[in-house]
Amino acid sequence: MFAAARSATASQTPAEHGDKVVALDCDATEPADVERVFAAAANVGPTEAAVFNAGTFVRGSILDTDPAEFERCWRVGTYAGFLVGQAAARRMVERGSGTILFTGATASLRGGAGFVNLAAPKFGLRAVAQSMARELGPKGIHVAHVVIDGQIHSQRYAQLAAERGPDALLEPDAIAAQYVALHRQHRSAWTQELDLRPWSEKF
Amino acid sequence: MFAAARSATASQTPAEHGDKVVALDCDATEPADVERVFAAAANVGPTEAAVFNAGTFVRGSILDTDPAEFERCWRVGTYAGFLVGQAAARRMVERGSGTILFTGATASLRGGAGFVNLAAPKFGLRAVAQSMARELGPKGIHVAHVVIDGQIHSQRYAQLAAERGPDALLEPDAIAAQYVALHRQHRSAWTQELDLRPWSEKF
Amino acid sequence: MFAAARSATASQTPAEHGDKVVALDCDATEPADVERVFAAAANVGPTEAAVFNAGTFVRGSILDTDPAEFERCWRVGTYAGFLVGQAAARRMVERGSGTILFTGATASLRGGAGFVNLAAPKFGLRAVAQSMARELGPKGIHVAHVVIDGQIHSQRYAQLAAERGPDALLEPDAIAAQYVALHRQHRSAWTQELDLRPWSEKF
Amino acid sequence: MFAAARSATASQTPAEHGDKVVALDCDATEPADVERVFAAAANVGPTEAAVFNAGTFVRGSILDTDPAEFERCWRVGTYAGFLVGQAAARRMVERGSGTILFTGATASLRGGAGFVNLAAPKFGLRAVAQSMARELGPKGIHVAHVVIDGQIHSQRYAQLAAERGPDALLEPDAIAAQYVALHRQHRSAWTQELDLRPWSEKF
Repeated sequence: MFAAARSATASQTPAEHGDKVVALDCDATEPADVERVFAAAANVGPTEAAVFNAGTFVRGSILDTDPAEFERCWRVGTYAGFLVGQAAARRMVERGSGTILFTGATASLRGGAGFVNLAAPKFGLRAVAQSMARELGPKGIHVAHVVIDGQIHSQRYAQLAAERGPDALLEPDAIAAQYVALHRQHRSAWTQELDLRPWSEKF
Repeated sequence: MFAAARSATASQTPAEHGDKVVALDCDATEPADVERVFAAAANVGPTEAAVFNAGTFVRGSILDTDPAEFERCWRVGTYAGFLVGQAAARRMVERGSGTILFTGATASLRGGAGFVNLAAPKFGLRAVAQSMARELGPKGIHVAHVVIDGQIHSQRYAQLAAERGPDALLEPDAIAAQYVALHRQHRSAWTQELDLRPWSEKF
Repeated sequence: MFAAARSATASQTPAEHGDKVVALDCDATEPADVERVFAAAANVGPTEAAVFNAGTFVRGSILDTDPAEFERCWRVGTYAGFLVGQAAARRMVERGSGTILFTGATASLRGGAGFVNLAAPKFGLRAVAQSMARELGPKGIHVAHVVIDGQIHSQRYAQLAAERGPDALLEPDAIAAQYVALHRQHRSAWTQELDLRPWSEKF
Repeated sequence: MFAAARSATASQTPAEHGDKVVALDCDATEPADVERVFAAAANVGPTEAAVFNAGTFVRGSILDTDPAEFERCWRVGTYAGFLVGQAAARRMVERGSGTILFTGATASLRGGAGFVNLAAPKFGLRAVAQSMARELGPKGIHVAHVVIDGQIHSQRYAQLAAERGPDALLEPDAIAAQYVALHRQHRSAWTQELDLRPWSEKF
């Protein structure tokens, strides 16, 4: 398993699950960097699944949004997803199988006030996922888009988790289990889009 | 496991899977019949999951659609879903847990020409699922709606399956596996809606 | 112009606009009643436009919803819309022109907690509108669905209007103007679905 | 009226409608260029309405899509829309009124195979429109997004128009009439999103 991030080698990686995890630094907005990661993975074995999670944004009024910031959020949220999806697809089409998963958010479906820098990239990423799914499904590649509707439980949200009560934030392991399940779906019944949210979340 | 259908006792039931299956005749458009099935199940143990699959329709022009037929399709497709969902929910709220699954179709999201007798009930069923999910989620009950986009593999579609090639129709076991997976989702990451379609299906 | 309602002859009708308005009592859930109104209108001239506005519901938990009430709301909200749409369409196809407008609500797109008796009928009505539009458009009949997202200004909401400030409730004349505009759209650019909401409404 | 385009001064402009039309060259992907056009317009009078129509794309497989081309399409389709919307909004908020219209396409709602370079920008533009509408509506600015579903009648499509028959392509005047109507909507009943398609178009 390869885990790529801007500073992946410095990050904790899920070695505990038994798989050997290779952590690689990667700026997913750079085609050459994305290519390097997929090439490294290809040296170990076929690329069976690729997951794109990257995203960034700062909330703010449309009136004050810096065009450079708007572009940067798109570069991380949509463009990098396109690069990763394309690199994965190019390898998977040769074998006629593989899974490509994109992580969306509530903002993939709704452009809220103050959320233009999140919604514009997330809408775009969903379009990438749909276009890829429709083209690549008949070539044996499963492309799915997962709308995460809620906060993900992490150290950063420890207090929020305590306030909201049990299981009110998405557990990373529960998300991961869903991603594995998508990868394992029988090809006669593939999911293109699903949502995940805590039982107690308003929506 | 209880399997209810208009003529369930005469139908083949999945006894092979090890569970004891009790087959019951039930007209799901009759509140008393629905209640009888849930009461029978309650005698055996708590109702952990309920699945609503019923549906019927005849394709035709809006100009020629018989109002009685329009009503009948709604009665099977929406009303029965409401009755089953309500009966299940009433038992599940007491325990604060349970799963209720509704089976939708492409017509749940799109009213096609000639499909008014399918789309009107399926749209309505999706509304029932959403309303139930938003009310019952915070009470511990997982309500999900599954859009089946394609033909399901059965004897009836044997020739179509042969024509279209491998796995081009949804395998019942693959659908069932997904329903079980929905029931087993961790409550921090529940799916409210997902689609299932064969890898080669146009959409 | 014909204005039909359960007690139309007792209601105020918009005679002030210059058109002669014929007010007719009609239970739109009764095929014969609907037919009678359209026949009466046909005696005067061709049916150029039909508008379906009916709807009813009582908010409540899914657990307590009376099946008879669930059915009644569907009968008014979906079934009557189907009957009116069909009666209008049958007359319009002969001439190859006409407009049929259906009034939806926020609940046409979202099944909220406690709103099952509104959402299920409104979802169904939207399916009717879509199926009709796709079948009848190529026959020269314009079918559109209007999502009204907000309260409509009326005596009943006088206090709410005062609280919320200027134009925070939908003005009936503004809605009517939009319906007329839909009727007058050039057939090279027809709208199938649009939303209407006050400028200050959250959504 | 100001008409800005990459080579606007060389293009035909609708002077016939009586308004004086000032044609300006503008690269809408350049903040300074956009600012210059709005500043020029502000010299003449308040900016009452702004329409964003720009878009470009080349159809192709996700496997062969050049990242630079993917970026260019976004720059024209989403980024320029953001720049134009922001420039318009900044002027309109001072007066508490104005209309900003964005032109979408079928690809705003659906990412088709081969259409990633159209869908990704159009999805993003729709997100911009929604975020702006939700923030700016309560400030008196009407933001709407129009999904054009079909070919627009022009010299370029003369043969297609002949083949398909009367009014089977969207007439520019019919689109323009709709945009004017959106600008004139009463603020108690604003449309955020609507579709426009020829009567005979499949959808």
